[in-house]
Formats: sequence, C-alpha cells, structure tokens
Amino acid sequence: MFNIVKGTHDVILNEATKYTYVENLLERVAETYGFKEFRTPIMEYSELFLRSTGESSDIVRKEMYTFQDKGDRSITLRPEITAGTIRSMVNEKLFANQDYPIKAYYVGPNFRYERPQQGRYRQFNQFGIECVGVTSPFRDIEAIMLGYNALKLLGFKNITLQINSLGDKQTREDYQKALREYYSKYVDEMCDDCKERFNINILRILDCKVEHDIEINKNSPKIEDYYSGEARRDFEIIKDFLTDNGIPFEINSNLVRGLDYYSGVVFEYRYTSSQGKDYGALGGGGHYNNLVKEIGGPDIEGVGFAFGIERLVKLMEDDSLFNNEEETIDLYIMPIGMQNQKICFELATFLRNNGYSVDICLENKAIGPMFKKAERRNALYAILIGDDEAKNKTLNLKNLTSQEQITVKFDDLLTILDDMFGECEDEHDHHHE
Amino acid sequence: MFNIVKGTHDVILNEATKYTYVENLLERVAETYGFKEFRTPIMEYSELFLRSTGESSDIVRKEMYTFQDKGDRSITLRPEITAGTIRSMVNEKLFANQDYPIKAYYVGPNFRYERPQQGRYRQFNQFGIECVGVTSPFRDIEAIMLGYNALKLLGFKNITLQINSLGDKQTREDYQKALREYYSKYVDEMCDDCKERFNINILRILDCKVEHDIEINKNSPKIEDYYSGEARRDFEIIKDFLTDNGIPFEINSNLVRGLDYYSGVVFEYRYTSSQGKDYGALGGGGHYNNLVKEIGGPDIEGVGFAFGIERLVKLMEDDSLFNNEEETIDLYIMPIGMQNQKICFELATFLRNNGYSVDICLENKAIGPMFKKAERRNALYAILIGDDEAKNKTLNLKNLTSQEQITVKFDDLLTILDDMFGECEDEHDHHHE
Repeated sequence: MFNIVKGTHDVILNEATKYTYVENLLERVAETYGFKEFRTPIMEYSELFLRSTGESSDIVRKEMYTFQDKGDRSITLRPEITAGTIRSMVNEKLFANQDYPIKAYYVGPNFRYERPQQGRYRQFNQFGIECVGVTSPFRDIEAIMLGYNALKLLGFKNITLQINSLGDKQTREDYQKALREYYSKYVDEMCDDCKERFNINILRILDCKVEHDIEINKNSPKIEDYYSGEARRDFEIIKDFLTDNGIPFEINSNLVRGLDYYSGVVFEYRYTSSQGKDYGALGGGGHYNNLVKEIGGPDIEGVGFAFGIERLVKLMEDDSLFNNEEETIDLYIMPIGMQNQKICFELATFLRNNGYSVDICLENKAIGPMFKKAERRNALYAILIGDDEAKNKTLNLKNLTSQEQITVKFDDLLTILDDMFGECEDEHDHHHE
Repeated sequence: MFNIVKGTHDVILNEATKYTYVENLLERVAETYGFKEFRTPIMEYSELFLRSTGESSDIVRKEMYTFQDKGDRSITLRPEITAGTIRSMVNEKLFANQDYPIKAYYVGPNFRYERPQQGRYRQFNQFGIECVGVTSPFRDIEAIMLGYNALKLLGFKNITLQINSLGDKQTREDYQKALREYYSKYVDEMCDDCKERFNINILRILDCKVEHDIEINKNSPKIEDYYSGEARRDFEIIKDFLTDNGIPFEINSNLVRGLDYYSGVVFEYRYTSSQGKDYGALGGGGHYNNLVKEIGGPDIEGVGFAFGIERLVKLMEDDSLFNNEEETIDLYIMPIGMQNQKICFELATFLRNNGYSVDICLENKAIGPMFKKAERRNALYAILIGDDEAKNKTLNLKNLTSQEQITVKFDDLLTILDDMFGECEDEHDHHHE
C-alpha cells in the first residue's frame, strides 16, 4: 500500500462535488464583476517569488518547495498565484495591448511546506483575483465587494470585514521608523519570532499572538498618524462606501497581512457561525503599488485577494451551508440475464448520447441486488429488460420514488423520458439562479 | 522581467475560456456515463510511479520531476493521474465500501521533463477516466464509447478507433518469448532505442518509427496467434459491438501503448481533419489487470483512458471547431464626470449582485473613449449617468447593437433588464444543449 504525501489530501466523490460547486460559484461571481480567467503554470523559476513575495516573508524563508530541474534551474512550486498571474501579464504584453485595469481571476493548487495541522495542507487550492492598473479607490471597493458578495452567495451569513490602510510608500517608511524607535525599548523582552521580525519585517510584530507582546503592542505608534493626504482620502472613500451600503466592517490598525507587497487598503473577511463561533479570516488581500514594477511591468498599482478553498469547504460543511441534496443519476439499467447485456448496453449508450446520466449493471446480478445498487446510486428511474422484452423491443420503466412501473416500446422511450424529465426541468435547473 | 519556465505555458483570457469549455464538456459527458470526480494531489511519493508505471517506461526512466522534500522523502510531480487515482481508492477504502465498478474521472495538470517541442509541454493537462473492478468486456466498450462520444460532442468529425488486444498474462508471456526469439536475429541492425527496448520492454519495438525497423517488424510474430480463449472472446465482443453500432475502427496489432500495465484491449482515437490531414492520436487507453494489486488494492481489473487537453484545444483551433462567438459582457457603465463615479459604482454593485455581468469605467475618460472601451469589451448595453441623471435618479440605457437609447428610472431598471435579457434567454443559454 502506498501512502498519500504527508500534508496532502484526496478530494473524491461527494467531496469533489463540493469543491467544484464552490469553485464554479466563485468563478461565476468573478465574471459578473468583469474578471477573466488566468491559468498560469504551477512551476515558476524561484527568483519570481524571491522578488515578488519578499525574501523576508515566512513563505519564502521557510515554506517553499524548491528544487533544481534536470537543466539545473531552480524551480519553485508556486506558494501563491499572484506573482505568476502578474508575470503572465508582463510576458504576454497585456500592459501594452489591453485596456486598464486588467482583471484576472484564478483558481488552482498552491504548495507550502508547513507543519501539517487541522485544516492546513501542503497542497491547497486558492481562488483569487488581481485587478491591475488601478487609479481609483473604487477598484479597491470593487475587489472587496466581489469577495463579500461571493461569500454571501455561498451562504455565509455573518461576514465582517476587517480593514486597514498601510498608506503609501512615505507612510510605510515613516511608520516603520517610528515602530523601530518604539520597539527598540521592548524587543529584548519579546518572543523569539518578534525579535526576528524586528530585524526583517517590523510590521509583522503587530500581528503577534503572544500575550505579553500584545500588551506592548497596545501603546505602539498607530499607522493612521502617518497617512499622507491622498492615502487618508482614499481610505475615507472606501469606509464611506461600506458605511453607506450597509457592509459591516471594523478598522483593525494591527492588520498588516503576511506579504511584503501591500500598501494602501488591506482587508480580511471574518466569519462568525450561526452558533456564534468566531472562525477568523476566510481570506483577504489588499492594494499594492510596487509589485507590478518588481515583476517587470510598468509602475502601476493593483488590488487583489484570495480565498482558501479548503477552508471555505470545511466551514460550509461545519455550518451546514451545503444543500444536502444527494447526487442522483437519471436511469439505472438492469439486464435480466447476461444474454441481455448487449441490448441493455446499446440502450445505455443511446440514452447517454442524448444527455441522460445512465448507469448499468454488467455484473450479472439477480434483480434484488440490482435494485439495491440502483438505490445506492440514487437513480431516479430503473429500466429492466429480460428475454421477452428484448424479443419484443420493449422495456419496463420503473419510477423508483413512486414505484410505478410502465412497459414502453424502445422507439417511444426517448419521447417519454423527454416528457418526464422536461416537466421537472425547473427543479433540476440549478444553473440559472 | 521574469521568464516563464521552459516548456510551460500561460493560458489566459480567451484561451482559458476554451480550456474551460473543453474540460467542462468532458466532465459532463463522464457524468452521463456514471463517473464521479476524483481530485488527487499533484505530489506523490516517487515509489508509486516506479511501481505502477513500470520502471522500464520512458516516463519513469527519463521524464519525471523528482526531488527530495525538506523531510528527505522522494517526491514526484505526477507524470499521469491513473496511479494516484487508484492509490486514493485504496487509501480511502473504496474497494471495501463501494459497489463495483468504481468509476472515476479526473482533470488536471501533469509534469514530464520532455524536450520542448511544438504542442508538447512539461506541464500539461489531462482528462481521463478509470473504471475499476471490471468483469465484463462491456466496461471496456463503455470506456471506449465515452471517449468517442466526447470527441464527437467537441465537434471532431472523422474519428477512427485503433484497437488491439494484448491478451491476458499468459498471452503476454508467450508473445514476449516469441518476440525475443524473433528479434534476437535482428537486434544488432536496429536503432539504439530498439536495442534498449529489446532488453527492457520488447513490446515497444513494435512502435518504432525508424524505416529499417518497420521493415523488420513486418514479419514479426503477431499477437493474435497467442490469445487465450477468453482474451479472444472478449476482443470479439468488443469488435462486434463497434461493428454493429457503426463505430469506425481499425485493428492495429502493433498498438502496444507506452505503459507497462496494460493487458486486454488497448485503443487510441485517431483524427483526420476536414482537409484530410491525419492528426494522429488524440488520446487512448486500455484495460489493465495488474495495476490495482500493484498499488495495494485487491486483484481486480480496470479500464481507463486519457486525453491531452492541450492537444484537443490546439486541434480544435486548427480545425475551427470552436464557435467563434466573442465573449460578451451584459452592461458597461459610464460615469460622466468623476463626481458620478460613486453612484455608478453602487449601481454596478447592485446589478452584479443580481447576476448581470457588469464593467464600469473608473478611469475618468471622456465619452468617446468610454464607448471604445465598451466596444472592446463586447458590452451589449451601455449605461450613462451624468449630473442631471444622478440628480433625478435616472440613467440612459443604450443598446450597443441597435444604438437605440432610452431614459430609465433607477427603480425601473432591474425590471426592464430582466425583460430584455429574459426575451433572448434561449439564445444565451448554452448550458442546456
């Protein structure tokens, strides 16, 4: 027996259906917001992430799957999809031949070598968007609203936005200087992680979850005192929109996000279950002003966010947000006697080619066990064909809910099925909500 | 500027739409045949492929992306999805708690370190199925018909099946012995690859494309002379079904497929374009009897096949099998003057939340350039709001095809749009063919 790679997981059968449902919904919402799909490779040259994600980030320092290929180039399995998406915009010359902003959405696997723990995987899926070439704070709002709206459509009821603004470049420089001054008095008594953060990325000290450090953080300089006029005005426009449109939000001046490239507004979606349990952040993102240039594009700004699909699916399961509908199959065909397998199989092929989902028993079972199999497959109708039926080109069609059974000529079957399934088409039609 | 990894490719904008279309169609067809989605990890422990794919295969010997993880385990990026799919069935104990056969479909990226060449990628996508726990040749036919039907639905017109049977275990042993005897007289004059194949996997000599070797192959022993009674009978059932149902096929006794685990029927779908150009194999697969046991499952047989998505998309482009419909967006909103951005943006959010795809200009352009942007985005309608409209809570709604324009109250807009879009819903509705 072969083990699955530690920290990865199989997503199969009904669980796969849930993943597909969540991903398709997110993709559809992104399209109503005018975003287009981008599929970039899972392998990128390592330097892309060193530059874009920032060498000081935990991801780059500890968590990347990096190896040399047979041509001795350093390859990394992407730990996130933002960098590759923007690289593709540069390589494909979209900044030269498309209207701004360029609006991309993506969904796919990422790889991080993290300590395996509940709900954290080394291969995990993300959905996200990037809106690049942004000159208006309404583009930030557009990104925020896309994520908010998508979570509502997935069924999440108590979503609260946490937002912050990291200001512009000058803000960050001034603020980091003030932080360095403040923390230089306390760093010796802080946790080891914070000692490291003090040197590499001082903003992340504000994120610390250690009690003693939280106390120290309470009196640290506040970023809002360092905003430029423009940063302050953009943040006001965003807050006003959320207030005017009844979107619940909190300002969290300790929200800095893990990555180095954010500036301007950053945000997270936090979820409280119907039972009042705080589930923390479902995802988040922010505005960036340096990333596109770092990756070789023009000096333009962008905004993006990402959701972890595994986390969404888990919380939707925990909070019963999936419809409990079992997946059905339209028809289950039962040959009575092996000699009738061929005629049954030809019928199955005919019905499948006409769009019906059909399963067939080819394992030479008695009628009782075949009905059990049909039941376990959640078949709506059964078709039975024995010697008499095969000879007369008829079949028995049984409604497995009402148990009603009728005898039908082969030639009439498709018309009858189209009538029966046409009648309840509205109920079946989940695609046009 | 950062390069894309050699041999990989970005799939973005309209090209991504094509990939999604092809994958969704294949998935829908698989579901009508009673298959369920399986999503297994991209990383597997290397020994899985050494065992399942066969150490003698080209893939395992030369093409795998293999590296040590930080825990010093040998990881391989999957070169194909069959092994992982069956591993997941074993690990998840499906052979103990599900009816046979277990019917899986998959779609996703694979990785092979091949010499980059036209249409061959180091990261490429496959769609495929595995039907495991097979006791009837009709399951082989089911797999063959699924692939055939899917190709027809994608629009491929001249598909010919090539089929062969590799017989059962006894057949292969006897046949390989006969081949070894025959080729021992010629191996010195054959190509280097064949010299290697003679020792590692003699069946693959039959696949050789070198002219001199093709001559030698002409008089080699033929596998049909080594079939057992059962292998011969199963193959007859398959051929009879194809004949009776008008599926064009050829028997190709040199068809052995690249992998070691096939036995019984093997098949490929070959395509000839409308201009008569032979495009070769679009995909293929076969029956296997040893693979499940090798991976730690019970001693049961299966059948599967795979298509390369890149190849399907390329050929569909070359042979104009995609509908040339440009992707449209329902509405493009134009604020006249920056002071009207907020009210326009709120309207955009409202319409998006009601399921309309909407883009909005937030880049403070004059009317002319905004209409140009709407045109490039293939918007169906434009909405214009200036100071008067904002004050009166009205808007101008312009049909960009007919150029007709009407003035509409905010409160009436949704009803009017629902009427207009409802009327042509049948045309828009591509999901219910």
